[in-house]
Amino acid sequence: MIVEIISVGTEILLGNIVNTNAAYLSEKCAGIGLSCYYQDVVGDNEERLTNVIRTALQRADVLLLSGGLGPTQDDLTKEVAAKVLGRNLYLHESSKEAIDSFFKSRGIEITENNWKQAMMPEGCIVVDNPNGTAPGVIIEDKGKHIVLMPGPPNELVPMFESAIMPYLNALEPGIIYSQTVKICGVGESKAESMVEDMIAAQSNPTIATYAKTGEVHLRVTARAEDEKEAKKLVKPVVKELKGRFGNNVYTTQEDVTLERAVVDLLLANNLTVSTVESCTGGMLAARLINVPGVSEVFKTGYITYSNKSKRKILGIKKSTLEKHGAVSPEIAKEMAKGASLFAKADVTVGITGVAGPDGGSEEKPVGLVYIACSVCGRVNVRECHFSGSRMKIRESSVSAALSLMRESILAYFSEVTFGAKKS
Amino acid sequence: MIVEIISVGTEILLGNIVNTNAAYLSEKCAGIGLSCYYQDVVGDNEERLTNVIRTALQRADVLLLSGGLGPTQDDLTKEVAAKVLGRNLYLHESSKEAIDSFFKSRGIEITENNWKQAMMPEGCIVVDNPNGTAPGVIIEDKGKHIVLMPGPPNELVPMFESAIMPYLNALEPGIIYSQTVKICGVGESKAESMVEDMIAAQSNPTIATYAKTGEVHLRVTARAEDEKEAKKLVKPVVKELKGRFGNNVYTTQEDVTLERAVVDLLLANNLTVSTVESCTGGMLAARLINVPGVSEVFKTGYITYSNKSKRKILGIKKSTLEKHGAVSPEIAKEMAKGASLFAKADVTVGITGVAGPDGGSEEKPVGLVYIACSVCGRVNVRECHFSGSRMKIRESSVSAALSLMRESILAYFSEVTFGAKKS
Repeated sequence: MIVEIISVGTEILLGNIVNTNAAYLSEKCAGIGLSCYYQDVVGDNEERLTNVIRTALQRADVLLLSGGLGPTQDDLTKEVAAKVLGRNLYLHESSKEAIDSFFKSRGIEITENNWKQAMMPEGCIVVDNPNGTAPGVIIEDKGKHIVLMPGPPNELVPMFESAIMPYLNALEPGIIYSQTVKICGVGESKAESMVEDMIAAQSNPTIATYAKTGEVHLRVTARAEDEKEAKKLVKPVVKELKGRFGNNVYTTQEDVTLERAVVDLLLANNLTVSTVESCTGGMLAARLINVPGVSEVFKTGYITYSNKSKRKILGIKKSTLEKHGAVSPEIAKEMAKGASLFAKADVTVGITGVAGPDGGSEEKPVGLVYIACSVCGRVNVRECHFSGSRMKIRESSVSAALSLMRESILAYFSEVTFGAKKS
Repeated sequence: MIVEIISVGTEILLGNIVNTNAAYLSEKCAGIGLSCYYQDVVGDNEERLTNVIRTALQRADVLLLSGGLGPTQDDLTKEVAAKVLGRNLYLHESSKEAIDSFFKSRGIEITENNWKQAMMPEGCIVVDNPNGTAPGVIIEDKGKHIVLMPGPPNELVPMFESAIMPYLNALEPGIIYSQTVKICGVGESKAESMVEDMIAAQSNPTIATYAKTGEVHLRVTARAEDEKEAKKLVKPVVKELKGRFGNNVYTTQEDVTLERAVVDLLLANNLTVSTVESCTGGMLAARLINVPGVSEVFKTGYITYSNKSKRKILGIKKSTLEKHGAVSPEIAKEMAKGASLFAKADVTVGITGVAGPDGGSEEKPVGLVYIACSVCGRVNVRECHFSGSRMKIRESSVSAALSLMRESILAYFSEVTFGAKKS
């Protein structure tokens, strides 16, 4: 089945917001085996929205529209879709009640225009929206499926996951099941070459690779009569991937991020953590602290961007700094060691590098970053070469640091070394 | 003139990447007075790309295509555009030389397929690409303007700014000139209500408002015969906006961010800075450190996420923590004071709050954040209430902290207080 994704909103055409909904819906649709050939963006304009819906009905089986379901005069999506499909709108009582209680629970007075959101196309399926006032709508028409969703991502995403995705999944005989093998510490091209033979030989399940900053995700997708059968198809492929990538696989769970995997590893081993950052300036700590519950393990984080701060906080000698330079494996190591001493944490990380755009030299070019990780006194240092903007280099450094932390902790407990340079 | 933005790439349809190019191009086009009615995304497929180009030629004057100019068989944009417009491709010698020297300078061997990138449609304008191997292309055809640009943003953005935007600007008689007044410390709806009368009365120049996290940008755009005339139209409006928003205007320069404005203010006043972060966990320091040259002013940053760390690093008494709770104006103040003491910095900031999703209570709900800023010992504390995800609350906190830093420094030097709660 073919899906077309239509985002409605003048604010997208003005560049005020980035269209993350389209990326989200596209990824989800690919995950359940729907092919997307076109994405469209159109403003809150009756004539042009009519054109886009008519064209999409000719070339797709499923239309996913988002945006334009709100209470204002500008919000036209439901009205235009109903008109194109020749449906009248009627007052949907339980949506009216839901809107009423949504406002009452927040103690806000309802303005008259809000009732517009309870008007529904005849014969449609109304989809609950627990996070807002505009319900979703599914219209089935001559073998086509037209789905209308609210634009705000915090309303669209939960609605899609809980109601729309199961609906789409049920449209084709059998079901789609997928599992993602998330890998760190292996470059994109190396990861791809390691699974080239599997991708070439694939039919069901299929393997798709997704490159993220410092990570590669391999999604294994199978179609089968039922979930049990699909899982049976996926299982040996995931096992094979786990075998090939070994300890570089940090999770096979959809909702586990790399920082969450590191925090889980710390919690499981009863280890505390402290960070000392130079070029990343707090970004590593910020990512760790985005994991709820991290307060159990996170001790102090230090940002020692200047040499003075490195000397004062970590007690690094001026002569050491002068001899090796601030961006050196020696200083990264001193940073990690200093943190174990002062923060009394079990796992400590030091990051120092040239993030650019200035400050690079022939010997130490922009993008050169040293990361040291100490686990109970045993230190691993890694030299990295990144490219891109100042922000990109810093983001890559943080991902590499999380990767090194994971490897160092695992190595400490299993005596496996992952080829990291020990010192 | 009407513009249509066409993004080419299967990776966008699979949701592997978010279409930031479309948002960037839309914003830029709006800035020079071009109306965008449709954005399209299509894969690397001859038939479908042909359809999209044909449709766009019927409804727009300018087509901005990005992606699909690379060396692989998949890259079809130039070939398909040339075919639709009935142009042959020929080998463009100076592009061939540019590709040759691009590879030589990087010491990489050129593979045969790269020469494909030097093939150009007859009668086109070839646009230099200093950041990659695929040149841009402009084809003028029966009053329409078809612009082909490479997909990677680090190639597209510089090419658009240096060559494509001036080209588009010259298409209509007269020129478009705009200036952005960037405001912090004023909410979106308040800012809008403060300029409502100006927006209602506008014709040339126009005023457009853009809400960012913790900031509002007001773009003033004028069309005139020449730049001098346009600047003359923009100037009094910018002056009026500056008058209305006073010290809340942090810049009128396109390339100055809020963190850059704060760092510039520190540099100008010869002040050093130190941060102490709890719920934001290093995000404030990370934003400051994204400003090149910040090493002149940034002393140590501390991340004291746990109570233990607050006590140990800042010397806050257990009884103080127990009496007020970690999320309180008192603790925010202690954090800022502690940093002035230990880091010996002139300007210090403390942030403590409930970022959620757990940890909220009736008295201290998720989203409650206290920020304290000390300038040479004089402390301002601000109470904030944010909503959204854990990450959104943390991002809002960082913007509010930058805003408070700016206000506190200005207030210290001018005895203006901005209504901040002094303590």
